[in-house]
Amino acid sequence: MTSLFAYDHLYDFTVDVFLAIGCSTSDAQLAATVLLSADLRGIDSHGVARLSGYVRLWETGRINPNPDIRILHESPSTATVDGDRGLGLVVAPKAMEIAIRKSKQCGSGWVSVQNSNHFGIAGYHAMMALQEDMIGMAMTNASALVAPTFSKERLLGTNPIAVAIPSGHEEPFVADMATTTAANGKLEILQRKGMEAPDGWIQDKDGQSTTNAHSLKEGGALLPLGSDYEHGSHKGYALGSIVDIFSAILSGANYGPWVPPFPAYVPMPDNQPGKGIGHFLGAMRIDGFRPADEFKKNMDQWLHRFRSAAPVSGTEHVMVPGDPERYMEKERREKGIPLLTAVAEDLSLLAKKFAIKF
Amino acid sequence: MTSLFAYDHLYDFTVDVFLAIGCSTSDAQLAATVLLSADLRGIDSHGVARLSGYVRLWETGRINPNPDIRILHESPSTATVDGDRGLGLVVAPKAMEIAIRKSKQCGSGWVSVQNSNHFGIAGYHAMMALQEDMIGMAMTNASALVAPTFSKERLLGTNPIAVAIPSGHEEPFVADMATTTAANGKLEILQRKGMEAPDGWIQDKDGQSTTNAHSLKEGGALLPLGSDYEHGSHKGYALGSIVDIFSAILSGANYGPWVPPFPAYVPMPDNQPGKGIGHFLGAMRIDGFRPADEFKKNMDQWLHRFRSAAPVSGTEHVMVPGDPERYMEKERREKGIPLLTAVAEDLSLLAKKFAIKF
Repeated sequence: MTSLFAYDHLYDFTVDVFLAIGCSTSDAQLAATVLLSADLRGIDSHGVARLSGYVRLWETGRINPNPDIRILHESPSTATVDGDRGLGLVVAPKAMEIAIRKSKQCGSGWVSVQNSNHFGIAGYHAMMALQEDMIGMAMTNASALVAPTFSKERLLGTNPIAVAIPSGHEEPFVADMATTTAANGKLEILQRKGMEAPDGWIQDKDGQSTTNAHSLKEGGALLPLGSDYEHGSHKGYALGSIVDIFSAILSGANYGPWVPPFPAYVPMPDNQPGKGIGHFLGAMRIDGFRPADEFKKNMDQWLHRFRSAAPVSGTEHVMVPGDPERYMEKERREKGIPLLTAVAEDLSLLAKKFAIKF
Repeated sequence: MTSLFAYDHLYDFTVDVFLAIGCSTSDAQLAATVLLSADLRGIDSHGVARLSGYVRLWETGRINPNPDIRILHESPSTATVDGDRGLGLVVAPKAMEIAIRKSKQCGSGWVSVQNSNHFGIAGYHAMMALQEDMIGMAMTNASALVAPTFSKERLLGTNPIAVAIPSGHEEPFVADMATTTAANGKLEILQRKGMEAPDGWIQDKDGQSTTNAHSLKEGGALLPLGSDYEHGSHKGYALGSIVDIFSAILSGANYGPWVPPFPAYVPMPDNQPGKGIGHFLGAMRIDGFRPADEFKKNMDQWLHRFRSAAPVSGTEHVMVPGDPERYMEKERREKGIPLLTAVAEDLSLLAKKFAIKF
């Protein structure tokens, strides 16, 4: 059961909620924009459905609505930023601005962030670079749901990587992907529908392959991209590890099994080695390598060639990363964003809690 | 059938071959070191087995043994390098030196390379950063053997990514992986043995999944990491694309289906948009983010925690990327490098051609 909600309606409500927990107007607007970019792009698990989760983190004192976001350490092209327990939705775009500023000054900028919280979709932050004629990158670690190859234990988050690459007249390249075979959001959909998961998405508590979509709640784990060793899961494991290390060991955040869980009711891991969760943001000026118009001419040819590749019979056409999300955004801006009844009810409860209108 | 050869024996021979095609002594030594690092680390498809292939490229005029490797365009933290048709085995480490120099100066260095040839294993170049207390990255594009998700056409190479991360007393993290489910070298082994490929490695000329290990020679394609859409092949496709764009569109090399093939007998694609093949090298100073000793303390804890994870029953233990290759290198330095009879015979023919000793 879903109902459609206009973007503007959800935006105003989300701003009101962030104002209600004490954010400044500009931070509330930024956080709402970042959060709802997930709903627009069809990544429903990371959008407004999580709003009450952020509020619960604030209630337990884990989110500081007025963070003093500051550089702890830097070089001309690098920096470590302390997010001061702010909303990742606010901390990450501000860290990305630092990366873009450094990139303007010396060709590239790379910022590792400690002491933050969940930052919504990685793609939003990477795409900030596009309008500057820069390549943008964004990563974050997350609480451990993923087992390394041959491990029974969950040691990594779904640790996404996003890369946005500017183009000329063709629509740009925007990859935004969990480093697992399937994102946790896709599994949650199957759980709600009472369906089995495809083989290769998850393992049970003993590390054996399973199609039981609920096995994650029974000590199982998501599998790294590749699913099993024979199909390259050690590569997905390596990618998730790189995200963890760039986001958290460069910055001094928590890593591996010590990353704070998103649900406020899940206890914190013991003996945490760092602060909060970590992100990694990057920007590279195209014209640090060659004139931007030459790059864009080649990039347009690349994009056109891939989009016009001969498709396998029975499939529609070959897409470039970011195409499905862009189609979705166009549709949802026009027709509205579908929310599950349970999500809409959750937002109504939030409205009541803060005496605001939904 | 294999025979064992001492590393020093193969090294001296390889240096002699590179001298015979006109390389300087220092370039011949560098090229031999890079090439043989593949044999030492167990990536046999990229080592001395390819030596005669490099010679054939030189014979057809595609390799310049005395390249004028130079910076075409730069900013404080970025550069584009012209490899002047040199051996990638020489061009890439020299480009990596530029990345390391820029990283020393301003925290990070990123170099895109055009007009190069195959560079051996990506891991060698990334690992150059370790002794500098830097994170190293290396990528290269390669001729098109891989079909994007839903494509019948081959548009990408196996486009590897390597990332090397320094540590304290624990052995470092070194990921080096093709962005396909299986590297082409693994497929070649199955072809030689007359065995079938596992499901999910390749598709036939119509884009249908196949286990025929020879289908690549019949118009088929390798599959991106993830194998099929349900298992995330669009993510492997995105990763291979990022490698292609960073290596070749930032630099002005050939990309996608226009990348020059490694076998000298395969004709060049028509209407090539750039020069040679492309690489992308990067280095980030650890202390551009935080003091290196703090980083290494956390990194050691990370490495120890992952290496000591509870293994799935029936598997030995959980490894960190780079562990299998390091074990292999230790063994092969002691016991020698096994070469297939066909490879040893190929080297004997090279020895005859150049009147040098094998």
